[in-house]
Amino acid sequence: MSCPFSPDASRRGFFRTAAAGVLAAAAGAPALAEETPSSEPFHGPHQGGIATPQQKHVYFVALDLTAKQRDDVTALLRAWTMAAARLTRGLPAGPISTDVNAVAADGGDTIGLPPARLTLTFGFGAGLFMKDGRDRYGLAVRRPAALVDLPVFHGDQLDPARSGGDLCIQACADDPQVAFHAVRELVRLAYGRADLRWAQTGFLPDTPAGETGRNLMGFKDGTNNPHPDHAPRADVPRRFDDVVWVGAEGPDWLRGGSYLVVRRIRISLEHWDRTEVDFQEEVIGRHKYSGAPIGKAGEFDALDLASEDQEGNLVIKETAHVRLGAAAVNDGAQILRRAYSYNDGANFTALRWPPWRQGMMYDAGLFFLAWQRDPRSGFIKIFENMSRMDALNQFTTHNGSALFVCPGGIAGADFVGQRLFEAS
Amino acid sequence: MSCPFSPDASRRGFFRTAAAGVLAAAAGAPALAEETPSSEPFHGPHQGGIATPQQKHVYFVALDLTAKQRDDVTALLRAWTMAAARLTRGLPAGPISTDVNAVAADGGDTIGLPPARLTLTFGFGAGLFMKDGRDRYGLAVRRPAALVDLPVFHGDQLDPARSGGDLCIQACADDPQVAFHAVRELVRLAYGRADLRWAQTGFLPDTPAGETGRNLMGFKDGTNNPHPDHAPRADVPRRFDDVVWVGAEGPDWLRGGSYLVVRRIRISLEHWDRTEVDFQEEVIGRHKYSGAPIGKAGEFDALDLASEDQEGNLVIKETAHVRLGAAAVNDGAQILRRAYSYNDGANFTALRWPPWRQGMMYDAGLFFLAWQRDPRSGFIKIFENMSRMDALNQFTTHNGSALFVCPGGIAGADFVGQRLFEAS
Repeated sequence: MSCPFSPDASRRGFFRTAAAGVLAAAAGAPALAEETPSSEPFHGPHQGGIATPQQKHVYFVALDLTAKQRDDVTALLRAWTMAAARLTRGLPAGPISTDVNAVAADGGDTIGLPPARLTLTFGFGAGLFMKDGRDRYGLAVRRPAALVDLPVFHGDQLDPARSGGDLCIQACADDPQVAFHAVRELVRLAYGRADLRWAQTGFLPDTPAGETGRNLMGFKDGTNNPHPDHAPRADVPRRFDDVVWVGAEGPDWLRGGSYLVVRRIRISLEHWDRTEVDFQEEVIGRHKYSGAPIGKAGEFDALDLASEDQEGNLVIKETAHVRLGAAAVNDGAQILRRAYSYNDGANFTALRWPPWRQGMMYDAGLFFLAWQRDPRSGFIKIFENMSRMDALNQFTTHNGSALFVCPGGIAGADFVGQRLFEAS
Repeated sequence: MSCPFSPDASRRGFFRTAAAGVLAAAAGAPALAEETPSSEPFHGPHQGGIATPQQKHVYFVALDLTAKQRDDVTALLRAWTMAAARLTRGLPAGPISTDVNAVAADGGDTIGLPPARLTLTFGFGAGLFMKDGRDRYGLAVRRPAALVDLPVFHGDQLDPARSGGDLCIQACADDPQVAFHAVRELVRLAYGRADLRWAQTGFLPDTPAGETGRNLMGFKDGTNNPHPDHAPRADVPRRFDDVVWVGAEGPDWLRGGSYLVVRRIRISLEHWDRTEVDFQEEVIGRHKYSGAPIGKAGEFDALDLASEDQEGNLVIKETAHVRLGAAAVNDGAQILRRAYSYNDGANFTALRWPPWRQGMMYDAGLFFLAWQRDPRSGFIKIFENMSRMDALNQFTTHNGSALFVCPGGIAGADFVGQRLFEAS
C-alpha cells in the first residue's frame, strides 16, 4: 500500500487514502514510481509536448526573469525540473506534509485526478541571454544564432502584453485544471526570481482517434503536418525529426532541442461565418467537408499546385492558404504546427476592413504553436510570404508573438538547459 | 443508411458519408431521430443544463436585444429553439446544403464530433421586459416580481462589460468546441435582432464519477449541493425540486422555470497559494483534503455549527464560508450551485488589501452560476450576509453579475418562453 504523503504516491493514491482518513508520516516512505496509462514520460532525448500526441488543452505562460544572479536562474530551473518530473507523473509538485500549519508544497486542486497526459515544456527567450543591453547572467556569448528577433511581419498588430518573455512554460494535458495547476505550482516556485508576463489557454475538440480535427473555421487542420511515425510524402517531403530537432548545426547544449514560435491569432469568426462555402474553400485551398485539396477527393491526396481549370486559372489560387504554406513554394521549409484554438470571451472591436463592423466580437481564434529546428528556415521563411499574400489574412490578426529556444530532453538528475549553463 | 445532408443526420453520420465523398440531395430525406448515448434531451418539463449532471465545459453569453418589434423577438426565439433542438442532438444548426455557393446553415466546426452532452439553456434579463424606461415589446406588465434588480453587494466591483444582458444562452458540453459552436450558430441567427454583450468560458476538472470535484482553491466544491436523486439531509433540508423550480407562486408561463444568478468571481490565487493549510481550512470551514467539516472525518458529515473547542471558540468560525452559506443560518435558503472555474490568462492587477502586491496576476477564479426558484429567498438572501462577513472575501472579487429568468421546459413545436408572449 502506498503512503498517502509519500513524494511518489500518485494523486489517485493520495486521494483514496486521504479520503479514507488514513494519515501517515512522510519520512522514509518507499519510492513507488507509478507510471499510469495516462502519464507521458518526462525524461528522454527530447522534452515532452512536442512530438507527444497532442493533448486537448494547453496553458501557456511567459515569464520575465527578475533573478539577479546566474545561480538564482539555475536554482529556479533545478526546482522546476524536480517539480515537473513529479507533476507529469500525477504527483503533487512537492510532498504534501501532514503539518497543516504551513504552506503546502502543492495547492491540492488536482488531488484525485489522473495525470491526464500532462507534459511540461520549457523554453528560453532572448532575454535570458541579453536584455536591455545587459548580459545579466553571462550567457550573451551563448545566444544561438537561430534565436533571432522575429521580424515585423506584414499586418502585425502585436500587443507587448501578449508577446515575448525570458522564459516560457507550455503545459499540455487532457484536463484543463491539470495544465493550469502545474503552471501555478511552477510559477509559485519562481516567486522572487521570475514574474508572470502573459498567459494563454487553448483547447482542441474531442476528435475521434485517427481523424484530423477541425479548427474554429470548420476546416480540418493539420493534414499536412509532419508526423513522427509517417514516412515523407509528396506534400511533407522531410521527416519529422529533420524538421523539428536541432542537430549538429546548433550548439552542443541544444542538440535534440527545438525552436518554438508562438502567435496569438484572432480570427474574425463573425465575418467568416457569413461567407459562402466555396469562397472559404478558395481562401483555404481545400474542400471544407472532405479536407481534400480543391479538385481532389481525398484528404491526404497531394496538393497539385500547377493544376489549372478550363479557363487556365489555377485550381488552387495564388493566394490560397495551403499554397503559401506548402513546402514546394517555400524552398522545402516545413514546421510542426501544434496549435490550439483559444476562446477568451468577447470584447469591443472595430474592423478596419470590410465589412467594417464594430461592436462586441469574439476574442477567439488560433493559439499558434509551431516547432522547428531553425526559425529562419522554418516559420520566418514561410510566414514572410504568407503574411503578405494569404487570402486568410483578411480574417486574421496576429496580436501576440514570441520565440523561444527549447533545450533537448532531460536525463537523470539534470535540470532543463543544464548544458547551456555548464558550457559557458 | 442516413442521408448525409438530411436535417436529421447526426454529425457523425454526416461526417462519415461526406468524408467518403458521397453526396445526396437534401429534399425528402427521411427524419432519423438519432439520440446517441452522449446526447441530453432538449424537450421536457424543464430546460436542460440545470438538473443535468454537470458537463465539463461552459460557454455563456449575454446579449442585448436590438429587435424593434415583439414579432422579431419571437421569431428569434423560434429560430433559436429549432436550432437548439438540432444542435443538442449533434446535428448542424440547420441542414447543410450541397450548394457550396452559399453561406452554410452551420459553420461546420463540429462535423464528426459527438453531441458531447450539449445542453442549451435560455434566459431573459430585465431588459426584455423594460429597458431605459421603454416597454419595447409590451411585456412590462409581465415582468415577474422575483426578477428584481440585484442589490449592490458589499465589495462589488462590477464591470458593466461583464454584467447584465437582455437574453442569455448557457451552453454546457463535455467538449469546449461543441459549446462554443452552438453559441456561435445561435448568435449568428440573432444578427440584426440581438448583439453579443459579454461572453465567458468555464471548465471543470475531469473528476472521477461519484466524487466531488475540487475548485482552483484545492477544496471540494459542491458537497452540500441539492441533488435531484437525493433525499434531504440535515445540511440540505429542502428537496432539489423545491429549491430550483418556480411553482404556483410564479406566473403561469414560468412554471417549471428557474432563476439564474451569474457572478464572475476573480480569485487571488497567488495570495491563496501562499497561505497555510489550516488557515485555508478556517476560512472555508472544512478540512482541505477530506472535505469534511472542521472537526469531522467524512465529507458528508453534517455541519455542526454550534460546536465549540475547549477554549469555548466556535470550531467552525463565525466568518467561515460554509457557515455563512448554510441553510441553517439563512432561514433555510438554498440554491443549486452549478459553477465552473474560469481561466482568462493574466492581467495587471493592484491588490487593494494585504499583501498589496501588484503585477501580472491570473485572471482566473469561479464563474458562479446559481439556480433557484426565487432569487430574493435564494442567492440574495444568502449573499447579503456572506458578502459582508465571509473570510473568503479577502481572496475574491466579484467583477461580473447578472440575473436571468429562465422559462420552463419546451414541449413539441413550442419555442422557448412561448407562453410568456402568448399570455400577454
